[in-house]
Amino acid sequence: MSDAGTPNTPLAVVLLSGGMDSCVTLAHAIERGFGIAALHVNYGQRTQQRELQAFTDICEYYGIGRTLVVNISHLAQIGGSALTDTGIDVPPGDPESARIPVTYVPFRNANILAIAVSWAEVLGADAIFIGAVEEDSSGYPDCREVFFRTFEQVIATGSATGSSISIHTPLLHRTKADIVTMGIGLGAPLHLTWSCYQNNTYACGTCDSCMLRLKGFAAAGMTDSITYQP
Amino acid sequence: MSDAGTPNTPLAVVLLSGGMDSCVTLAHAIERGFGIAALHVNYGQRTQQRELQAFTDICEYYGIGRTLVVNISHLAQIGGSALTDTGIDVPPGDPESARIPVTYVPFRNANILAIAVSWAEVLGADAIFIGAVEEDSSGYPDCREVFFRTFEQVIATGSATGSSISIHTPLLHRTKADIVTMGIGLGAPLHLTWSCYQNNTYACGTCDSCMLRLKGFAAAGMTDSITYQP
Repeated sequence: MSDAGTPNTPLAVVLLSGGMDSCVTLAHAIERGFGIAALHVNYGQRTQQRELQAFTDICEYYGIGRTLVVNISHLAQIGGSALTDTGIDVPPGDPESARIPVTYVPFRNANILAIAVSWAEVLGADAIFIGAVEEDSSGYPDCREVFFRTFEQVIATGSATGSSISIHTPLLHRTKADIVTMGIGLGAPLHLTWSCYQNNTYACGTCDSCMLRLKGFAAAGMTDSITYQP
Repeated sequence: MSDAGTPNTPLAVVLLSGGMDSCVTLAHAIERGFGIAALHVNYGQRTQQRELQAFTDICEYYGIGRTLVVNISHLAQIGGSALTDTGIDVPPGDPESARIPVTYVPFRNANILAIAVSWAEVLGADAIFIGAVEEDSSGYPDCREVFFRTFEQVIATGSATGSSISIHTPLLHRTKADIVTMGIGLGAPLHLTWSCYQNNTYACGTCDSCMLRLKGFAAAGMTDSITYQP
């Protein structure tokens, strides 16, 4: 338990995909005074090498030494999503659509949170931070407030530490424009983040995730400094 | 969706570790008329090769063609349990103890259920069966009724199919003696199962899991046909 938080510095497991939202969430957790344990989950998504690079760069930027990279193959094995199944194309984004898009990975956030809770229990951490965004989540059911609050009840009933691990979702009800503004205000290294679902070198600029990011920067009146496909 | 259940034959994902409880649970699901998708999760436990063999043998016995074996390394990476951390010895069983034993793997059942739900969503399955036993679970918090019922709420809120996947725990309130009797009544191939936490060849007969199994056979007035360490 040498890694455990103390009453003065509580410890948080922060899910850090390497995307903009998770980077801003990390900056927020640091500002709130949490000690950080950064968790990155590769789940066989197309851009996992690029996302891992972003994770490493962000951890280095903040000098975070307590990191865990987990490789899970089962979401790709199970399939059912354009993010992990190369037989399904990533479609152009359509933020107006009400249906759940093919980039939805079935029950992904539950799988990722379960890993975070296991690590949090062993570390003696007090909190888990995840950068989910309800409004901009393209209708993914496991990005909604009710899902996270119910998952907290699962932690309370199913973990040895009982109800002492809370799930923080500081971006849940924010727009992408708010998140850009918040990130810049916190000094988050947005230039190191990666959001594109499709490409590993230049961001495609056309997938769901790129479109939401670009729209967020535009609405915030800021310029995104990562490189997009010409 | 060619693997989906029909109104006449609903489909169940059955968690089949290869132990006695999961084998009896499978036999019960088959008797209830479910089509079966058998899921085995290797999580870096000491006896994973032997358990995988038991899984394969049981699936062959029942002629189950729809199987998925998932290897996850993160519970072993995270550590904190004698089952996955070779630095922690598996202690002799002490069924009278009220504390959570060192064989507890933090939040294991949540990790495993999350995988099952992801697969169930893609298959269009109606149910998940898991052979957890509350009374004989050595105090593991994620083997209790309240945990499973809360997890069902997480499925209802976090999956694309909404509340249509139920978790069945037919052994939850049974004793090991009941389970032995039930398994024999259902014709379950208990001779193919593996329960020992410690060994891969002869069952040790002294770990928590062996002691519970042997106590169950004795209380049911039956003889266990697997081979124990002389």
